[in-house]
Amino acid sequence: MIKTPDKSYTEWSVIARPKDANSIGTIFGGRIMDWMDMTASICARRHSNLKVSTVAVENLHFAKPLKVGLVIKICAVINRTFGSSMEVNVDVFGEDTYNNNKSFKAVTAQFIIAAVDDSYRPVKVPELKPESAEQIKRWEEAGERRNKRNAKA
Amino acid sequence: MIKTPDKSYTEWSVIARPKDANSIGTIFGGRIMDWMDMTASICARRHSNLKVSTVAVENLHFAKPLKVGLVIKICAVINRTFGSSMEVNVDVFGEDTYNNNKSFKAVTAQFIIAAVDDSYRPVKVPELKPESAEQIKRWEEAGERRNKRNAKA
Amino acid sequence: MIKTPDKSYTEWSVIARPKDANSIGTIFGGRIMDWMDMTASICARRHSNLKVSTVAVENLHFAKPLKVGLVIKICAVINRTFGSSMEVNVDVFGEDTYNNNKSFKAVTAQFIIAAVDDSYRPVKVPELKPESAEQIKRWEEAGERRNKRNAKA
Amino acid sequence: MIKTPDKSYTEWSVIARPKDANSIGTIFGGRIMDWMDMTASICARRHSNLKVSTVAVENLHFAKPLKVGLVIKICAVINRTFGSSMEVNVDVFGEDTYNNNKSFKAVTAQFIIAAVDDSYRPVKVPELKPESAEQIKRWEEAGERRNKRNAKA
Amino acid sequence: MIKTPDKSYTEWSVIARPKDANSIGTIFGGRIMDWMDMTASICARRHSNLKVSTVAVENLHFAKPLKVGLVIKICAVINRTFGSSMEVNVDVFGEDTYNNNKSFKAVTAQFIIAAVDDSYRPVKVPELKPESAEQIKRWEEAGERRNKRNAKA
Amino acid sequence: MIKTPDKSYTEWSVIARPKDANSIGTIFGGRIMDWMDMTASICARRHSNLKVSTVAVENLHFAKPLKVGLVIKICAVINRTFGSSMEVNVDVFGEDTYNNNKSFKAVTAQFIIAAVDDSYRPVKVPELKPESAEQIKRWEEAGERRNKRNAKA
Repeated sequence: MIKTPDKSYTEWSVIARPKDANSIGTIFGGRIMDWMDMTASICARRHSNLKVSTVAVENLHFAKPLKVGLVIKICAVINRTFGSSMEVNVDVFGEDTYNNNKSFKAVTAQFIIAAVDDSYRPVKVPELKPESAEQIKRWEEAGERRNKRNAKA
Repeated sequence: MIKTPDKSYTEWSVIARPKDANSIGTIFGGRIMDWMDMTASICARRHSNLKVSTVAVENLHFAKPLKVGLVIKICAVINRTFGSSMEVNVDVFGEDTYNNNKSFKAVTAQFIIAAVDDSYRPVKVPELKPESAEQIKRWEEAGERRNKRNAKA
Repeated sequence: MIKTPDKSYTEWSVIARPKDANSIGTIFGGRIMDWMDMTASICARRHSNLKVSTVAVENLHFAKPLKVGLVIKICAVINRTFGSSMEVNVDVFGEDTYNNNKSFKAVTAQFIIAAVDDSYRPVKVPELKPESAEQIKRWEEAGERRNKRNAKA
Repeated sequence: MIKTPDKSYTEWSVIARPKDANSIGTIFGGRIMDWMDMTASICARRHSNLKVSTVAVENLHFAKPLKVGLVIKICAVINRTFGSSMEVNVDVFGEDTYNNNKSFKAVTAQFIIAAVDDSYRPVKVPELKPESAEQIKRWEEAGERRNKRNAKA
Repeated sequence: MIKTPDKSYTEWSVIARPKDANSIGTIFGGRIMDWMDMTASICARRHSNLKVSTVAVENLHFAKPLKVGLVIKICAVINRTFGSSMEVNVDVFGEDTYNNNKSFKAVTAQFIIAAVDDSYRPVKVPELKPESAEQIKRWEEAGERRNKRNAKA
Repeated sequence: MIKTPDKSYTEWSVIARPKDANSIGTIFGGRIMDWMDMTASICARRHSNLKVSTVAVENLHFAKPLKVGLVIKICAVINRTFGSSMEVNVDVFGEDTYNNNKSFKAVTAQFIIAAVDDSYRPVKVPELKPESAEQIKRWEEAGERRNKRNAKA
């Protein structure tokens, strides 16, 4: 079975509230990572239709702080599959609804998520079929990242 | 200024976890209402570009229980504006990712949300321009509901 | 078996803290709904002595914003039973303990709550016997609301 | 100004949910203490009409475990005032709504709470006037406890 | 089997965030008690290697308020064992990392924690062997406190 | 000013509770990341005595699942400083207190954390002086990782 990335695309929005803030007025980084993992996991479940478990997070960069009051939008899209594991790209945007919904990318990362059975053994996932130019580019870059990881190990 | 409903459409997905459960194995109703209000508020902020405050919730029906482990998807779309207030429709779906992402509507409601200034006084919002047949139907039904509310008062 | 409303009256108080606030300094609406559902559910459990599940919320009106620092008091009282379902009235008060405990009604709604067995099938609840003039008035109004709901369906 | 204990009596009920549980199926002790402090603080604010700060907790005994699914009821009543501080008694009950609302006392403690100004300096509170036999007994026992505390120091 | 206190010493640090605050800008007392109980329970589990349940809290004093933004450090050390129960001392420090990590003791208490089996029956714990002068002093003071408790009962 | 890694070493332990679990019985990955970021941030604040902001997370690997009921221990130690940024190593251990406190490493990552002023501009941090063989090894490896990052950019 083969699936396109659109089938598992996952979007999530939240209003950043005081309960999410650190002590210097912006959203606590760990809180954002928690939201990213949730969104990536849903994407991986939608693609694999299996139980999933996050294996690694790569290139997690916090480019810009996110202030209380902003709408936070998180988008997860699957880049590529490798047997039983999936690389899911997660982007976090700050969206200023008080300023014409202007949006900026604040955080980005790739989540490596494995499909597992009840004993946490890996299970093969459906193959991914990228279609658009951007999807194909993501698919190729995911392959290069994997080669580098394997070279390191 | 006039906006279409697509401009403010808001989608939100979460994995139902044990922390969200009541003591009989399904998601606690109040938790779902909290998520619905958040999603509706983002939709209202995206349409109005103003501060917003929930004024009323109408026709909130819990049709089906939602079990831990399901993906919960919440969709908010603005039905109509009335001066400074907006009627936002919120649908909650349970999505069984372990069963081919089969989805069922579990909860639905209309949220009446006002745009306000810093002193909580009402502020006029942009008009809504429904385009598709469904958007026009939603727009008309929102008008009927409002007439009934006014008749009661 | 017949029970009076006093047997299941439920009261709940909390100090509104920053963790409960939205991004404009008042308590997030969804948070209040969560508290209301909890209080209504306890009331329904105390009356029915059964498992319960919220079926609908009606006439939920947020009349006044609630600020951080206020004591929030929520009172739930059963209005009437209909076979396996109960109508529970929930009032939310803001209480200013720094100003002689002055209190104002901020939110109100009726919760329709069903008694269920382990398979979520409806189970008959004890009848309600209203005694005071106010309890009888609530009982009658609940009947009228139910007639309207049935007329709509 | 003189006030009776009834003026500040505070009651709080909650359904014990999985999110409140420790890893062996009962409510986590720290969670219960958190609820007790909240309830005691409201009672102290209602009596003093001032800002308050918990100074000490005495004789905190967990007599019985509390299971997920029970209704937990917490009752706070002021025992006595001492200048700027108040002794508030807090009792925690487990209430089995599936078994005719049978209730048992699970935890008890006295909270010593000071009224303070914005700089955390003590402020005198209204005197307490116990009326019923039980209120008078509580008032006297609070005095004995205070004498013992002072003897220790 | 005999163990020293060092084997079960437990340390826990957190940044005090807005979500932990009360409505007057300092950390809510119940939140601190929750953290103390968690830390004490880990210490008791590390000593006993058994399931544990908090039985009582003694001499809980809040000496100083803790402000949002401070690092809070909690240290739990076992003072003495009594058959199936353990006395664990818990100290809470505020640590000002913006001021050369200056630290002050803010809260202190002794937690009496029992080792239990699955039916909450008491189970004997390993004996404690105090070694340093301070450990021996703690051990002796725990004995005196116990004698006083028994005298009261 | 020069500081050793011991000055900022940070340890944190928690009992994994149902509220931390995902829907397949282990701790939710995002929850662990949240705890890691908190622990790393305290370490960075203790070294820098400045406000800090997480910039990136590298090599985040979830080697083993963590079950509800385990004690989770997180250790953060600073590896090296680079002007205004610090590399902090974070290890997460599962500790089975029911089995002689046996412990296994479950997750590891390096956090790149910047010291910032109130406008989020970088501020120079004290230099790190590694002393033990392990600290020197960590210091050198951090330099190699930084060279690779710079080569990529």
